[in-house]
Amino acid sequence: MFTATHRVQFHETDMAGIVHFSNFYRYMEEAEHAYLRSLGLSVSMTRPDGSVIGWPRVRAQCTFEAPAYFEDVIEIRLKLMRKGVKSLTFEVEFYRDERRLARGSLKTACCIVAHGQPLVSIPIPEDIDVKFVEEPAESA
Amino acid sequence: MFTATHRVQFHETDMAGIVHFSNFYRYMEEAEHAYLRSLGLSVSMTRPDGSVIGWPRVRAQCTFEAPAYFEDVIEIRLKLMRKGVKSLTFEVEFYRDERRLARGSLKTACCIVAHGQPLVSIPIPEDIDVKFVEEPAESA
Amino acid sequence: MFTATHRVQFHETDMAGIVHFSNFYRYMEEAEHAYLRSLGLSVSMTRPDGSVIGWPRVRAQCTFEAPAYFEDVIEIRLKLMRKGVKSLTFEVEFYRDERRLARGSLKTACCIVAHGQPLVSIPIPEDIDVKFVEEPAESA
Amino acid sequence: MFTATHRVQFHETDMAGIVHFSNFYRYMEEAEHAYLRSLGLSVSMTRPDGSVIGWPRVRAQCTFEAPAYFEDVIEIRLKLMRKGVKSLTFEVEFYRDERRLARGSLKTACCIVAHGQPLVSIPIPEDIDVKFVEEPAESA
Repeated sequence: MFTATHRVQFHETDMAGIVHFSNFYRYMEEAEHAYLRSLGLSVSMTRPDGSVIGWPRVRAQCTFEAPAYFEDVIEIRLKLMRKGVKSLTFEVEFYRDERRLARGSLKTACCIVAHGQPLVSIPIPEDIDVKFVEEPAESA
Repeated sequence: MFTATHRVQFHETDMAGIVHFSNFYRYMEEAEHAYLRSLGLSVSMTRPDGSVIGWPRVRAQCTFEAPAYFEDVIEIRLKLMRKGVKSLTFEVEFYRDERRLARGSLKTACCIVAHGQPLVSIPIPEDIDVKFVEEPAESA
Repeated sequence: MFTATHRVQFHETDMAGIVHFSNFYRYMEEAEHAYLRSLGLSVSMTRPDGSVIGWPRVRAQCTFEAPAYFEDVIEIRLKLMRKGVKSLTFEVEFYRDERRLARGSLKTACCIVAHGQPLVSIPIPEDIDVKFVEEPAESA
Repeated sequence: MFTATHRVQFHETDMAGIVHFSNFYRYMEEAEHAYLRSLGLSVSMTRPDGSVIGWPRVRAQCTFEAPAYFEDVIEIRLKLMRKGVKSLTFEVEFYRDERRLARGSLKTACCIVAHGQPLVSIPIPEDIDVKFVEEPAESA
């Protein structure tokens, strides 16, 4: 499991006084990117041949169990559940202290990304060596 | 089916040159609110007794099939799939012209919302008369 | 004067129950882009030689006079105040009905934009023919 | 001077490959709130009489000197320039390493905030003791 943290900002709340649900998908991605960073990787990598690899989202879902509030420090717990030939699937849980706020999942595909061109799905290159890690929290 | 439209704004794109995936959840909500508006309702309603009813999200998911780009006009097709005692479930499809870009679902719960108080789930009041509608597109 | 409109979405409000101030800068840009669209132009244009012209912001400021609320329809009134050799300066006012909510300005520079390259400021090409227009409102 | 840091997230970039300018206003606010937190204060405070004090923005401006990119760690340097009877004025500078990216200012007013009520400007209470501080960076 990889853990990132995020302090809720004012602009992330809505008129219901809680974090707008769409931000949980952003937190999910922040944790995924912090995880890649912890491996020395980036979600946007230029290959030796000049092509750029990106990880467009295939599917994301989230179930909301309790609200998050301004200034909460949210712990985002990320688990790599499956490494497919061309995709990664993560499970994500959101905690404030010992209270789970939400849980979800994220599937991303390995693609060649060129501006103005269709995305081309490719097998994950061997040197993109994602794995299960035990890491101290990084502030996302 | 209820249909809303949304023109993609520059600030909704990301460095991959496409609409950031988190915005699809916002478009989903924009269509839901436009639907409620078309019925003379609002997602945030003050009741005669002064209490405020809101619709916090229980679960939202989306599968992404093709990217959306700056200045695209996206059609958001919303179907009310289930009206439970205390919740509503919508199915959503996103189109640009005849191309489907994404599809997903959204479940919301009817709650009493008071600032600084826990959300209290309640049965949907009878006068909140959601139903299937055939409406001309409203710009979300 | 060019006029665009924007209906306030739920995710644009914050826990103070009003539109978060940062969104006014986004509305400003939405109106600028709608203005360019009305002239058959786009904020991101590929030139015959393959280079891409963009308009990075040089300066933006806004003074807030009254809050905007969920579902408000905001009128964004844009005036091109100055066309310099390499830049455009707009004045912007935000209204709800006859009430002015905010006023500000935006200065943008004409640049060659290439990914991963420094921005290069250039004289505005002659065929980018911005001017004062009187246009019916377009929903931004 | 108070210093906060912010790591640029993917969803904060736009199709020009750089941080969308509207986010600098959010970073400005993140630093202001981190500064208040460092003093044991919050931007949203409930008073002994039950009223809530907030700090709506009066004016914000920013001049952009160089782009910020995905994964940059931005240093936000905040100076309290003026403590008026009812308002605070901050100057803000944004740095990546020794390169200044932008500079701006933010004026906020002390107000009683009640949902659905007009904001009421009040003198800053004596126990809200803002001052110049020298603090180690907090991740915003």
